[in-house]
Amino acid sequence: MSLTSAVKEIRATREGTWILTAQCPSRLGTVDVVTRFLREQGCYITEQQSFDDSASERFFIRTEFRPLDVDQGGEFDAAAFEAAFTHRASGFDMTFELTPPERLVPVVIMVSKADHCLNDLLYRYRTGQLPITIKAVISNHPDLASLAEWHGLDYHHLPITADTKPEQEQAVWSIIEGCGAELVILARYMQVLSSDMCERLSGKAINIHHSLLPGFKGARPYHQAFEKGVKLVGATAHYINDDLDEGPIITQGVEAVSHADTAEDLVARGRDIECLTLARAVALHVQRRVFLNGNRTVVFQR
Amino acid sequence: MSLTSAVKEIRATREGTWILTAQCPSRLGTVDVVTRFLREQGCYITEQQSFDDSASERFFIRTEFRPLDVDQGGEFDAAAFEAAFTHRASGFDMTFELTPPERLVPVVIMVSKADHCLNDLLYRYRTGQLPITIKAVISNHPDLASLAEWHGLDYHHLPITADTKPEQEQAVWSIIEGCGAELVILARYMQVLSSDMCERLSGKAINIHHSLLPGFKGARPYHQAFEKGVKLVGATAHYINDDLDEGPIITQGVEAVSHADTAEDLVARGRDIECLTLARAVALHVQRRVFLNGNRTVVFQR
Amino acid sequence: MSLTSAVKEIRATREGTWILTAQCPSRLGTVDVVTRFLREQGCYITEQQSFDDSASERFFIRTEFRPLDVDQGGEFDAAAFEAAFTHRASGFDMTFELTPPERLVPVVIMVSKADHCLNDLLYRYRTGQLPITIKAVISNHPDLASLAEWHGLDYHHLPITADTKPEQEQAVWSIIEGCGAELVILARYMQVLSSDMCERLSGKAINIHHSLLPGFKGARPYHQAFEKGVKLVGATAHYINDDLDEGPIITQGVEAVSHADTAEDLVARGRDIECLTLARAVALHVQRRVFLNGNRTVVFQR
Amino acid sequence: MSLTSAVKEIRATREGTWILTAQCPSRLGTVDVVTRFLREQGCYITEQQSFDDSASERFFIRTEFRPLDVDQGGEFDAAAFEAAFTHRASGFDMTFELTPPERLVPVVIMVSKADHCLNDLLYRYRTGQLPITIKAVISNHPDLASLAEWHGLDYHHLPITADTKPEQEQAVWSIIEGCGAELVILARYMQVLSSDMCERLSGKAINIHHSLLPGFKGARPYHQAFEKGVKLVGATAHYINDDLDEGPIITQGVEAVSHADTAEDLVARGRDIECLTLARAVALHVQRRVFLNGNRTVVFQR
Repeated sequence: MSLTSAVKEIRATREGTWILTAQCPSRLGTVDVVTRFLREQGCYITEQQSFDDSASERFFIRTEFRPLDVDQGGEFDAAAFEAAFTHRASGFDMTFELTPPERLVPVVIMVSKADHCLNDLLYRYRTGQLPITIKAVISNHPDLASLAEWHGLDYHHLPITADTKPEQEQAVWSIIEGCGAELVILARYMQVLSSDMCERLSGKAINIHHSLLPGFKGARPYHQAFEKGVKLVGATAHYINDDLDEGPIITQGVEAVSHADTAEDLVARGRDIECLTLARAVALHVQRRVFLNGNRTVVFQR
Repeated sequence: MSLTSAVKEIRATREGTWILTAQCPSRLGTVDVVTRFLREQGCYITEQQSFDDSASERFFIRTEFRPLDVDQGGEFDAAAFEAAFTHRASGFDMTFELTPPERLVPVVIMVSKADHCLNDLLYRYRTGQLPITIKAVISNHPDLASLAEWHGLDYHHLPITADTKPEQEQAVWSIIEGCGAELVILARYMQVLSSDMCERLSGKAINIHHSLLPGFKGARPYHQAFEKGVKLVGATAHYINDDLDEGPIITQGVEAVSHADTAEDLVARGRDIECLTLARAVALHVQRRVFLNGNRTVVFQR
Repeated sequence: MSLTSAVKEIRATREGTWILTAQCPSRLGTVDVVTRFLREQGCYITEQQSFDDSASERFFIRTEFRPLDVDQGGEFDAAAFEAAFTHRASGFDMTFELTPPERLVPVVIMVSKADHCLNDLLYRYRTGQLPITIKAVISNHPDLASLAEWHGLDYHHLPITADTKPEQEQAVWSIIEGCGAELVILARYMQVLSSDMCERLSGKAINIHHSLLPGFKGARPYHQAFEKGVKLVGATAHYINDDLDEGPIITQGVEAVSHADTAEDLVARGRDIECLTLARAVALHVQRRVFLNGNRTVVFQR
Repeated sequence: MSLTSAVKEIRATREGTWILTAQCPSRLGTVDVVTRFLREQGCYITEQQSFDDSASERFFIRTEFRPLDVDQGGEFDAAAFEAAFTHRASGFDMTFELTPPERLVPVVIMVSKADHCLNDLLYRYRTGQLPITIKAVISNHPDLASLAEWHGLDYHHLPITADTKPEQEQAVWSIIEGCGAELVILARYMQVLSSDMCERLSGKAINIHHSLLPGFKGARPYHQAFEKGVKLVGATAHYINDDLDEGPIITQGVEAVSHADTAEDLVARGRDIECLTLARAVALHVQRRVFLNGNRTVVFQR
C-alpha cells in the first residue's frame, strides 16, 4: 500500500476533522470560551473532552470539529480562526493549538542497535497508521541503516563518546531543527541526553523505558527484574526531562512472566510491549490527546 | 465503617459535584446550548465529555459541575435550573437528567441461588463504594435470605413456575414500583423475563451474562466454552431487552483459562470476572456514564 | 451454602487427588526418583510440572496423583508412603510434602482497619472456594470484629504501640502456634513485623502490598503513585521477610488509571486488584504451587 | 542482525536443549515410561509438564532435556534414542516427537492483501525470535511480493476464482510438499480451503481469525462487532479443520474498544492483537507446546 493511499484511508474515516486543544489556569468559563466560539464560527463538534485539575489548578480541553462551511463547499480559514480565537481567549491566559485534518507531524526517530521499536514505527508509518512524516533516523551506531533506507529514509550515523557528546548532540540538534521536526521519538536510544538537550526537547521527545517506572530505572531493567523475581514486566512511554527516567508518563504496558524466564527471556518478551506502548504514546501525542501538567500528564483517551 | 461515614467519604472527594447528562438528534450547537447555559448559571465545569455519533445521528454529553453559589454559601435551585434549561434547549429535542452530588440511586437486586454477585454488590453497598441504596432483594429461591438480612435488607422470596410466571412478575413489579427503584440489577437471576417485563424495564435493568457475548448465549455458557475449548472466558453486563442475551452491552471482562480447567473450574474462575464486570457496569450507570444508543451504548469512561 | 457442602463440591471435581511436592539440589535423576516411586506405589499421575533452575541449581516438582488402591476400595497409607519415599530419596537431599485431597490448611488472618481483603477471603472461605480453615482473625484494631464474628470466627483485638510491640507479637505468636496455623495471611495488616517475627514466619506468611513492587515501597503507595503520575497501579502478594516489601513475590496484579483519578480514587480502584491478587496467592500457596527459591519463587500455574 | 547470529543467541539461552513430546491413551505408568527412559539414557530434564485429560482419556507430556554425554564432549544419537524409546513405549500406543535444539521448523506462509501479520512474522523470523525457516510465501494477490522479496523469500502469486480453485489448491499443495514445509501459517489468507485441503493440512496449519471465536465467525467480523456494540474485540489462532472457524483453538487475545470506534477503527485496532496472537500461537506450536486433543488443544505454557 502506498503511503498516499493509506493516508487517504485515514481521512475517509475522520474526513475533514480538525482538532483544537487548549489549556489555561482554572477559572469560570473556560469551557464556554471555547465552545461558544466554535458555535459562532459554524464549527460542528464531533467529540470533546475537558478536565479541570484541582491539584494543579489548570484546565485542559480537546475538541474534534468539522467546519461546516467546508461541507458546503467553502474553505476554512485557519489563520482567521486562530486570530479571532486568540483575541477571544485573551483574558484566560490560554495556550491553544489548531491541527488540520490532513496534518502529518514531522518526526525524527533516534535509535541505537535494537531495532524492534524502529521496525514497528516504520511499519505503522509505511501503512499510514500513524499521522506522521519521518524526516530522519539518527543513531549512534550504523546497524539500522539498511532498515531505514528500505523505507526511503535518511539515516544519520552520529557516533558518540564521552568526549564528543557536546558535538554529537549539536549535530543531532541541527538535524532536528533543520528538518522542522516537531517530535523526537527515542526508540531505544541508549544514551543519556545532556541537560541542555533535555531542555530543548521538553515536551517534544518521547522515550520508551523498558520497565514499569518508577520500578527499575536506569540500566538493564530486565536483568533487575529477573533478580527481583517479579511476575510482571512492562514498559513506560514518557516525555523526557532532565531527571533520568523520571519524565511525565504518557502510557504504560505490562506482560506476565514466569520463573522459567531467564533475564534474556524477559528481554525477548518485553519487545512486544515496548513496541505497543511506544506506538500508543506516539499516536496519543500526534492526535493531540496528551497534555503536560507539571510532572504528570492529562491523556484524553478515545 | 457505617454507611453514613462511607457516603461522606465519597462526598469529600467529589464534594458538591452535580452531573448533567443530555442527548438529542445531531445538529449544530448541541454542545454550546449546554455549556453556555452552565456558564450563565455560574456553574463551574470540572469534567466534560461529548460524542456525536455519525451512525445514529445522535449527540450525547455528560458534564460534572459545581454550582459556584454553593461554594459561596448560597443554595443551588435545581428546579429552577431544570425549568430554565428545558426552555433553553427546547429547539433541540433534547432529553436531560440532573443528578445531585449526594444522590443514592434506589435499586432492587434480583438473584436466584448463586450468591457471588450479590455478595459483591452488598459489600460495595455497605462500604459506600457505590452510590446506591438497595430497597429490596428479590429471589425465586429462599437460599440467599440470610445474606440479605445480615445487611438489613428486605428479602422477597417469590418462587416461579411456568404457570405462575405472570403472577410472579406482577409481584416483582409491585415491589420495584412500590419502592421507587430506578435500577434493577439481575445479579445472576436465572429466569427469562417476559416481553412485557422487558418492556417495562427497558434501560433500567442491568443483567450479567457469564460469557463474552455474542459467544455462548443461553444456558450453561461455561459448559459451552469448555466444549469449544476456548482459551478466554468472560462476562458481559448489558441492559436487558426482549431478545435474550442481546441487549445493549455496557462493559465486558475477560479471564484466561487453560486445558486443565474443567467446566466446573471455568464456573469457579468466572465468578470474579462476573462480579467485577457487573459492579463496573452498575457504577458506570449510576454515575450517569452510560447512554442507550439504539442497540449499542455510549460509555464515557473516567 | 454450608461450608461442608461447599467442600464436597471441591472434592467432586478433583476427587481423591493427592499432591506431592518436592525440591532438592539439581542433579541427574531428580524427576525419575519421584515418578518411578509413584509408579511402583500404584499412583496415577494426573498432572505434573517440574523445573530445574540453572541459576540457583535447584530442582522443583509438583505432582497430582490418585492412589489406584483407593479407586478399588482400598486405603492409601500416607505414613507408609512417606517413610518409603524418605528412604528412596535419601541420596538427593530432597525435602517433600504430601498433601491429602480433603486437606484444609489452617490459617490465621491478620488485619488492621481496611476490610476489603478480609471480606473477600471470608467469602471465599465461606463458599469453599479456598481449601483453608480459618482458625482466628487478629487485629490491632477492634473495627472488623463483627465481620469476623458473623462468619463464626474468633477475633483477637491486640492493640500495639512502639512500647508494647514485643508483648503484642508474643501474643500473636501464641495464637498462631496455639491453633496450629500453617499460614498467616497479612490482609492489609498495617504494622511492620519485627525481625524475630519475620524469621519465625519465613515462608509461612503472605502479605499484600498495594503497589507493583519494587515500585512504591513503604507507606501510602497510592499517594506516591498519584504524585508520580503513573498510568497503571497494582498489587503484589509476597512472602514476608526481614526486608520490608522485599520478600519473594508470588503474584502481581495491575489496573489502568487515568489523570482524572485522585489519590483517593486510586485507593478505591486498587481494592479489587488487591483482593484478587491476595486470593490468587493464597490459592496458589495452599494448592502447593509455590516454592521458595532464594529471594524468588517458582510458581506452577494450572 | 544476521539470521545466523540471532539463532546463535537463541541457542545460548537454551543451549543444547532437546524436546521430547508424547501422547497416548490414559493408563498407569505413562509418565514413568518417559522419565525412566530419559534417566537411563543419561538425559538431564530441565522442564517437564504432563497432563492426563479425564474427559478424552488421553495423556500428554512435554520434556526439555540435555543429553549429558554432549556436555561431556560426546554425541547424542537421536536415531538410537528414537529406536530404543519406540521399543520401550510399545505397550502404550504412544506417539512421540524428538526435536533437536537447533531445529528450525520449515514453514509456508499464506496471505492475501493485508500485510500486518506477514510483516510481523517476517520481522520475528529475520531477527531469530521464532525458530522457523520460511520456505515460501503464497498469495492469491500480487500485493505483498516486495515485502517478501526484501526478506529474500520466494513469493508465489497464485490467483484463485471459484472455477480455478482445485488447480490453485493443487499448486499450493505442490509448493508446500515440494519445500518440505511442516507448518502452514494462514496470516490473513482470505480464502476458504476445500475439505480436501483441510484434511491434508490437519494439525499442520494455523489460521488467525479476527474475532474472539465462537463470536463473529465468517466474513467481516469487526463490522459484526461494531453492529453488536461489543466493548472487547479479539483474535483467535486455531488449527484449521473442515468446519470454518471451528478448528481447535491454540490461543486468543483481546483488546478494549469504545463507542467512538468506527468499524474501520476496530479493523485498525485489531491489527496488533492479530499479530501478537498469531505469533504467540506459532511460537507455542514450534516449541512443541501444543497438542491436539479432539476438537480442543492442550497447551503447556512456559
